[in-house]
Amino acid sequence: MTVEELKAKIREIPDFPKKGILFYDITTLIRDGKYFKEAIDMMCQQYKGQKIDGILAIEARGLIIGSAMAYRLGCGVIPMRKKGKLPFRTIVATYELEYGTDEAEIHEDAISKGENILIVDDLLATGGTASAAVQLVEKAGGNPLGCCFLVELTNLKGREKLFPVPVFSLIQYEE
Amino acid sequence: MTVEELKAKIREIPDFPKKGILFYDITTLIRDGKYFKEAIDMMCQQYKGQKIDGILAIEARGLIIGSAMAYRLGCGVIPMRKKGKLPFRTIVATYELEYGTDEAEIHEDAISKGENILIVDDLLATGGTASAAVQLVEKAGGNPLGCCFLVELTNLKGREKLFPVPVFSLIQYEE
Repeated sequence: MTVEELKAKIREIPDFPKKGILFYDITTLIRDGKYFKEAIDMMCQQYKGQKIDGILAIEARGLIIGSAMAYRLGCGVIPMRKKGKLPFRTIVATYELEYGTDEAEIHEDAISKGENILIVDDLLATGGTASAAVQLVEKAGGNPLGCCFLVELTNLKGREKLFPVPVFSLIQYEE
Repeated sequence: MTVEELKAKIREIPDFPKKGILFYDITTLIRDGKYFKEAIDMMCQQYKGQKIDGILAIEARGLIIGSAMAYRLGCGVIPMRKKGKLPFRTIVATYELEYGTDEAEIHEDAISKGENILIVDDLLATGGTASAAVQLVEKAGGNPLGCCFLVELTNLKGREKLFPVPVFSLIQYEE
């Protein structure tokens, strides 16, 4: 299967979540078992030979991608969630939204010093959420090995915000 | 690995989300790659030989379990989300909370007539959310093949609410 075939399985929805935004809906891709498996395998392939100690998966759609990758790679999952959802003591990071800020967190004992952590989400846009994830990995003493996305909106330059953490995306849109 | 060993990896947190509630925190289990893989494999083992056309995974923690199971079983994922999160046209189900009601939805084209759908979540408590999932599968014309949970709180009798859909849980607490 080619990346173009995977891309063709993504549904484009105009004016969601608001007027003027073109939303890339991955639910049509992950709904097909063959395409889902192929996308996960291709993403995992990028990290072949690297020692990964855990995957930080970003709520909500990042949980879908990150968890399947963790299963494939044989490592554990660290959910990064909106503030107030995790039951134990947490480390918090603040990140910028279009208007105002938001907070995300991980459990304070989820990452040990020096562990190599791969950050996974479905989509890289401006990079605000993923840079919060990088902050959390670093605060916990871990090493952000890379950020991995199913889809990247390249014109929003989120990749630059994540520098120097290596970024991989499987499917790109220039818009 | 035994189910008891998996159970020992779950962290018990008193008074979360509120006083008097004992919360079973699965993040400690899924954080360990070996335990995570073993739990997913054991859950999938239950459905060996059955034709599964898709996994309905319940937001948020159900996405973690359901997505890894879908990868393992080679089928696609249908995210059931809180109302307003999905970008395309949806089917909605209403379910009861302790106080009041909530709404969950799936995309209206996520399930085709007669498809065998496995419903997956991390935890079975009173069964309200999972019965909304059963409703959605049925409304879409699918066949709810079963409901599968990592953890079940047996004294809350959620299993009865899901009858006659077969229920499997890997780990039980009587409380």
